[in-house]
Amino acid sequence: MGEPRISGYEFGRAPRSPVSLDELKELEATVGFTDADRACLRRVGELLNGEVEALVDGWRKIIGSQPHLARWFFGPDHQPDEAYKAAVKARFVRWVHDVFTRPFDQAWLDYQEEIGLRHTPAKKNTTDQAHTPPLVPLRHLIGFVAPVAESVRHRLQAKGLSPDELDRLHAAWIKAVILSVTLWSHPYTRDGLW
Amino acid sequence: MGEPRISGYEFGRAPRSPVSLDELKELEATVGFTDADRACLRRVGELLNGEVEALVDGWRKIIGSQPHLARWFFGPDHQPDEAYKAAVKARFVRWVHDVFTRPFDQAWLDYQEEIGLRHTPAKKNTTDQAHTPPLVPLRHLIGFVAPVAESVRHRLQAKGLSPDELDRLHAAWIKAVILSVTLWSHPYTRDGLW
Repeated sequence: MGEPRISGYEFGRAPRSPVSLDELKELEATVGFTDADRACLRRVGELLNGEVEALVDGWRKIIGSQPHLARWFFGPDHQPDEAYKAAVKARFVRWVHDVFTRPFDQAWLDYQEEIGLRHTPAKKNTTDQAHTPPLVPLRHLIGFVAPVAESVRHRLQAKGLSPDELDRLHAAWIKAVILSVTLWSHPYTRDGLW
Repeated sequence: MGEPRISGYEFGRAPRSPVSLDELKELEATVGFTDADRACLRRVGELLNGEVEALVDGWRKIIGSQPHLARWFFGPDHQPDEAYKAAVKARFVRWVHDVFTRPFDQAWLDYQEEIGLRHTPAKKNTTDQAHTPPLVPLRHLIGFVAPVAESVRHRLQAKGLSPDELDRLHAAWIKAVILSVTLWSHPYTRDGLW
């Protein structure tokens, strides 16, 4: 089948994460992520398959409306770098699909470290040869879990699910987002404290 | 009225946080925390006022059941340090009440930095003169947002709320927990990346 080519999307070709698979398993236990949640994520993916770009557009609208979030996407002219934003958006959409469909294995783990690095001075801008600020601050990555969590609930609410199924699907999504962002926090963290 | 004395609880007497109130306001916007959420938190506090210790006991049961979470509460004899656990628990319960009732002002901001530091080598063990490992790793602080979020929903579900009110109260709680943990992540973060 093949997926459409996404610029800078290097899933399966990222360097080995310094985080071990054992640490990932422990973290899944901390979050409470189970096989049942994996099945729920697949189901969320089926239900929202045609809405992922709209979801990401909604998040980007929130980002664009808040100067302290938007500025990390600005070029040296203090205007949004539209080429950079478009490249990032395609990969953001792909991250959602990956959460829905991919196992949380070595390749997924490796790529979460890569995503984290791409928000820090180590790798921001390098993928797209952009000239935006060299950082998205960690606090906004963690803080943005809240709107990302809530928006998916709103979309699932339109699907006619039972309250119980809605809660289970939403909980699985929240866990997966927290898991992702926790892994992204790794390159931000002082040595030995992560 | 006066609150019962909690050992090591130094709300209002913590050093000034290096995080500014302006940064806190930005972070509240990122999370989507509004005055309506503040009102919701007060309501959650009224509904769960008698259950906070049970909530915290539930979280500690999860921690105790996972060796990679429990070990940070062990003494040099590799057994749980019960005195330390009891001291920490009382403050954990108090953090919940503070989230329900206190404004997110300078005093609250200062104390979140203090809570973060008390999970890092800078201040862990010093409050209680304990001899547990000098850290709770950041990944488990962020990851534990998930069970803390979900457990409050379960308790609110028993209160006979409308689905809409349940969702609003739960969303406010999630935002407040994410806000807290984001602030706790500050002392863990490399200079300039938070």
